[in-house]
Amino acid sequence: MRRSEFEVSDEAQCEQFLNERYDGVLTFIGEDGWPKAVPINYAYHQGNVYFHGSKKGEKMSGLALDSRAEFAVYQAHAFIPSYFSDPYLACPATVYFRSVRLRGTVDQVESAEEKALALSVLLGKMQPEGGHAPIDAEDPKYVSSLRGVAVLRLNVAEMTGKFKFGQNLSDKKRGQLAEALERRGLPGDHETVGRMHALAPPSKEARRREALAAKEETFREKDV
Amino acid sequence: MRRSEFEVSDEAQCEQFLNERYDGVLTFIGEDGWPKAVPINYAYHQGNVYFHGSKKGEKMSGLALDSRAEFAVYQAHAFIPSYFSDPYLACPATVYFRSVRLRGTVDQVESAEEKALALSVLLGKMQPEGGHAPIDAEDPKYVSSLRGVAVLRLNVAEMTGKFKFGQNLSDKKRGQLAEALERRGLPGDHETVGRMHALAPPSKEARRREALAAKEETFREKDV
Repeated sequence: MRRSEFEVSDEAQCEQFLNERYDGVLTFIGEDGWPKAVPINYAYHQGNVYFHGSKKGEKMSGLALDSRAEFAVYQAHAFIPSYFSDPYLACPATVYFRSVRLRGTVDQVESAEEKALALSVLLGKMQPEGGHAPIDAEDPKYVSSLRGVAVLRLNVAEMTGKFKFGQNLSDKKRGQLAEALERRGLPGDHETVGRMHALAPPSKEARRREALAAKEETFREKDV
Repeated sequence: MRRSEFEVSDEAQCEQFLNERYDGVLTFIGEDGWPKAVPINYAYHQGNVYFHGSKKGEKMSGLALDSRAEFAVYQAHAFIPSYFSDPYLACPATVYFRSVRLRGTVDQVESAEEKALALSVLLGKMQPEGGHAPIDAEDPKYVSSLRGVAVLRLNVAEMTGKFKFGQNLSDKKRGQLAEALERRGLPGDHETVGRMHALAPPSKEARRREALAAKEETFREKDV
């Protein structure tokens, strides 16, 4: 059961996450009919996901037969031990995380210009300090490398984000958990608390005030 | 093309990696025929991989129709910028990593005892400090939780490790890269250098000495 309270409908938040990360797992059906899970680096650019690799191998042979694919990017942010909320049961233990899944079909990129673009985006994220000649399809020193590398483009048909940061908790429990995380102070804990608050559904009091404001707005509209 | 110099044939090294990590991506064919990539926590125990989750949803419906699956675990260790080895071209940029892929069929675990074992192994890795009552199928407080949770077991038929730490480099280039990493000193860099040396193929000199020793051994055997 995909729990809807953790689903992220805001595309910009999913895209921001995709732009922060650079590895994920590409899934497709192999030549032998089995599902394949290939860890891979990627570049996200204007709604497309690019991968690169060898021109031969399981990705190329599998995707040539069936171009359907799904790509998953995941980041664990904080482990929440069970004793933060229950002194006896282990059940409440969980991980707060962000993940995005993208599905679509995969095409092989043929043009040297698009290959150069994809590789530039990927390297720009990993090596932002530069220190290399721009990857340019016109540069004779890059021509044979660009010809030799395979670049794949996932044409994204559907993007689903799942960010789990205690959206299912009451305001009181969220507050207690946030306090426990700040006390623990592991790397990522403070940032996790920020995400918990940012993603929290409106509190009862906020919802009450919002409803009141909407009502007043309605009255005013009637007055006009 | 899977490059054989990065393949890890030593099962113990793959198992050690699986025991260190706790998340990966489970891949299967969905009810709609599309490949699915689901980020998930796991526990590796005596050759099996266990997952847990809801009794309803895409994993259960997809795997009920086709139990074939692959599971990938990945860890990036160090980004190697292109300028560590080339002042002009971007091509040498790469990531040193460990990954393990496991394929097999997935069964739903029915017995409360095996469910309790799987969840104990998973939580033992994430919450080694304890702080909860042992997950015990006999404990009345756990009975309904264990009944309510779905536990899946990947019956591993094949395990493939790929550890990339410059095994393809000459001794000289490996030495230069190790020095550059130590100078950079990012978290993980020093450990990466250790892995580079540990995974390096025997050097020419070592191979020469080995060959000589083997030859001497042969002579000695002949003498006897």
